[in-house]
Amino acid sequence: MSTPTIKHALPVTRAQDFAAWYQAVVSEADLAEESGVRGCMVIRPWGYGIWERIQKLMDARIKAAGVENCYFPLFIPLSFFEKEADHVDGFAKEMAVVTHHRLRGIDGKLVPDPDSKLEEPLVVRPTSETVIGQAMARWVQSWRDLPLLTNQWANVVRWEMRTRMFLRTSEFLWQEGHTAHADEADARAETMRALEMYRDFAETELAMPVVAGEKPENERFPGAVATYSIEAMMQDGKALQAGTSHYLGTGFAEAAGIRYQDQEGGQQFAHTTSWGVSTRLIGGVIMVHGDDDGLRCPPMIAPHQVVIVPMLRDTPEDEAVLAYCADLARALGGVDAFHEPLRVLFDRKPIKAAPKRWGWVKKGAPVIVEVGGRDVAGGNVSVLRRDRLYNEAGKLASEVMSRDAFVAGVAEMLRGVQATLHEQATARLAANIRRDVTDRSALAAAFVGDKPGWVEVEWAKPTGPALDAVVEWLKSHKLTLRNVPLDAAPASGICVFTGEPAVERVLVGRSY
Amino acid sequence: MSTPTIKHALPVTRAQDFAAWYQAVVSEADLAEESGVRGCMVIRPWGYGIWERIQKLMDARIKAAGVENCYFPLFIPLSFFEKEADHVDGFAKEMAVVTHHRLRGIDGKLVPDPDSKLEEPLVVRPTSETVIGQAMARWVQSWRDLPLLTNQWANVVRWEMRTRMFLRTSEFLWQEGHTAHADEADARAETMRALEMYRDFAETELAMPVVAGEKPENERFPGAVATYSIEAMMQDGKALQAGTSHYLGTGFAEAAGIRYQDQEGGQQFAHTTSWGVSTRLIGGVIMVHGDDDGLRCPPMIAPHQVVIVPMLRDTPEDEAVLAYCADLARALGGVDAFHEPLRVLFDRKPIKAAPKRWGWVKKGAPVIVEVGGRDVAGGNVSVLRRDRLYNEAGKLASEVMSRDAFVAGVAEMLRGVQATLHEQATARLAANIRRDVTDRSALAAAFVGDKPGWVEVEWAKPTGPALDAVVEWLKSHKLTLRNVPLDAAPASGICVFTGEPAVERVLVGRSY
Repeated sequence: MSTPTIKHALPVTRAQDFAAWYQAVVSEADLAEESGVRGCMVIRPWGYGIWERIQKLMDARIKAAGVENCYFPLFIPLSFFEKEADHVDGFAKEMAVVTHHRLRGIDGKLVPDPDSKLEEPLVVRPTSETVIGQAMARWVQSWRDLPLLTNQWANVVRWEMRTRMFLRTSEFLWQEGHTAHADEADARAETMRALEMYRDFAETELAMPVVAGEKPENERFPGAVATYSIEAMMQDGKALQAGTSHYLGTGFAEAAGIRYQDQEGGQQFAHTTSWGVSTRLIGGVIMVHGDDDGLRCPPMIAPHQVVIVPMLRDTPEDEAVLAYCADLARALGGVDAFHEPLRVLFDRKPIKAAPKRWGWVKKGAPVIVEVGGRDVAGGNVSVLRRDRLYNEAGKLASEVMSRDAFVAGVAEMLRGVQATLHEQATARLAANIRRDVTDRSALAAAFVGDKPGWVEVEWAKPTGPALDAVVEWLKSHKLTLRNVPLDAAPASGICVFTGEPAVERVLVGRSY
Repeated sequence: MSTPTIKHALPVTRAQDFAAWYQAVVSEADLAEESGVRGCMVIRPWGYGIWERIQKLMDARIKAAGVENCYFPLFIPLSFFEKEADHVDGFAKEMAVVTHHRLRGIDGKLVPDPDSKLEEPLVVRPTSETVIGQAMARWVQSWRDLPLLTNQWANVVRWEMRTRMFLRTSEFLWQEGHTAHADEADARAETMRALEMYRDFAETELAMPVVAGEKPENERFPGAVATYSIEAMMQDGKALQAGTSHYLGTGFAEAAGIRYQDQEGGQQFAHTTSWGVSTRLIGGVIMVHGDDDGLRCPPMIAPHQVVIVPMLRDTPEDEAVLAYCADLARALGGVDAFHEPLRVLFDRKPIKAAPKRWGWVKKGAPVIVEVGGRDVAGGNVSVLRRDRLYNEAGKLASEVMSRDAFVAGVAEMLRGVQATLHEQATARLAANIRRDVTDRSALAAAFVGDKPGWVEVEWAKPTGPALDAVVEWLKSHKLTLRNVPLDAAPASGICVFTGEPAVERVLVGRSY
């Protein structure tokens, strides 16, 4: 993708060091930064703006499915986890635990006041099945109350020892859908609806192709009957689990007492589901679409889709340039793109045009418009598309075009950028899934070298100890089972792990 | 407002027991409920829907002012508070303190794992000045970086011993704006801009008249140079502080090191501000607009502005009624109200029409449209406006009108409901501020009896111990100083508290 003659905007390229490149994008695109608080990040305006776009578009899909937003407590009493823990003695989970409710200065030091110790410690929610289950038990009385479809947008905390911005942080932002249904069929339909919502959202809004499928038993959410995921392929070939949807059976309903009177007057337990996506999606967008000049932000989720950069020279001419830019911004503000008003920024910050342009390149603004005195005189604009930054000669592919033609065509141009990003990522995904591996040694060999991608193999779907053995072997090669794609071809051969007759195909890959 | 012949929808009226009435509205309108977690509430769909409307409309105002949203950590290291505490030994603050990062089963019990004790405890943010100040110190280098205008939408925790839903809960949702400026004038202008934004938002979107003014010294945010508030009058005459805006001087910048190079090359500390409103606003809306039949939700913040209730009889005619309702919903969905698409719900839940109608009355849907077979036959709808629920005879004031006339006039009808709510509340506020009290005994006497309202008195603006004495005396009468209204008349007499020459007018009242 890059030619040796180009001096890229980032200090490190993907080929040199993918992990360092990722951190460089996060930092140089002003997406997020370390907060000084262990495991927690500060999400900066451009990163948070992308999250706001994801929220807005996903929330519209969630509401369109009849799901209602609520808000549930941040804190969960410790005793709720005792119900969940099958065998308390084996239980150990990384969670932030609140034990005191007061800070006090004692002997010149600020400490948790010993007199304020809580009778029952509170856990900062890692997910909300238990506390929402308690509410559902109050809300569900009769079949008329079902299905009960709720969602919340919230922060959650999972104490992480090794953190990476957006991908694995102790605190992160997400939405968690929680639904209760009269029977298994309805709950399973909701589980698949949410999965399909995520798949289509990833492909459409994020321009990020994914494989939707069922997780193998060992990767199931604890207590779930079935867990499904969407898996995206990063440019280093690793998989990122980008969203999950769980059919929980009646287990959570039994623990929380979500019971209803059916139409015949009998008492039944509800069948529940849960499903979520998080700020992790932003990490996926970076690693799917980014290049050696920074992020390339899909126009549908770009906080600003078009950025206008005035080229000022500290001359009287500047006034005309600024007026021309302001007028252009007004005109663009009246345009619709993707059925919404186009999001345009006229960047008036008092810094020079060149660093300003490169700042927007690194942030991945889909279209950058530069306006200088010559453009004003000719009724033109100079347009830089982020998906085709350089021409064949390795020079910036800035194109002078008539201002009116640009305004008339900008919505189509943005659709073009969105489509290009999706096409490039889709081609990469397709080119990097192998389906020709039929034995273990070939499987291990497939992951030697750079950017190995994924391998879809036939397997016998072992369970219990047999599955553990497979997982153990994979782990020794730093591999994981991703999912059983919903659209995989049927199995016809033998299990790559056990040699038994295969029953389905499963994806194997390295992962984040 | 109510006549003895009417049987109202709530089990208790405002006149009977205002506090019990408030809880009844919160419960019967499905706004929120106790969560089973100490001090934390569950915000139910109708309550959360109102919050989403407040968020959306306030966020648009915040963004229009050039403020950018970010997200900062939930946890704040204990040491950040040591910097803040002037004298550590006197310090004592109710805050949720995280001390461990793992739960473990030990001897059959789940406990915070002693091996997971944090070296430095973490406080769940009660507000974010300190942690945002640290980020600002990294982001601000030069005068070109100023003003720095940030905001976050977040949950915060303040351990409360006595909680009331929406008004005072341990966890609540809010927005907190934090800005840094080159000089005092610019920071003070931002402080007043935020205050005016809140005032206008309360009056316009919430139809809730407020008094904007400066808080007296004893009510200042700790560390602030000046604190301003908007104060709303509840129907029991008490004041609710509904939003605050602080000019923080350079104190927080000095503590966090927010320093910039000015245009002459010198080093300067920034001047900072902070400002916030919270889910408390919903409590204000309930107590300003609610009546003995429940909430009356201002149309601008109503999750559904028009609710269509089909009157079904389990006859073949029902099909035509449902089709008529669906067509009506489509037509209303194409209407704009308050410059947004009208929010209409066709309520298909399988419950009877009468309890369904009363459910929406209690929730305060601005307009309820009932459709029965007779309406379908006549091309009509039966319309109930929530601001005029009963006619003079004490009967439900449901009005039959032509379906087409209703669709054509619904936006104007919603503007009418919004205006009525604002007018009623404005008249009440104006009628319940006395300005004729000139001595302490008259002041105390003014608050004897029901719904005493507020008293605006002239005072000498005492400070230090003289102010403490005033506050102490007020406290003994369960009174508080609210604010010094920005638009108060100048003082011309003597201080009601000290007998000295007065310098300004201050509001006195009971408060939440």
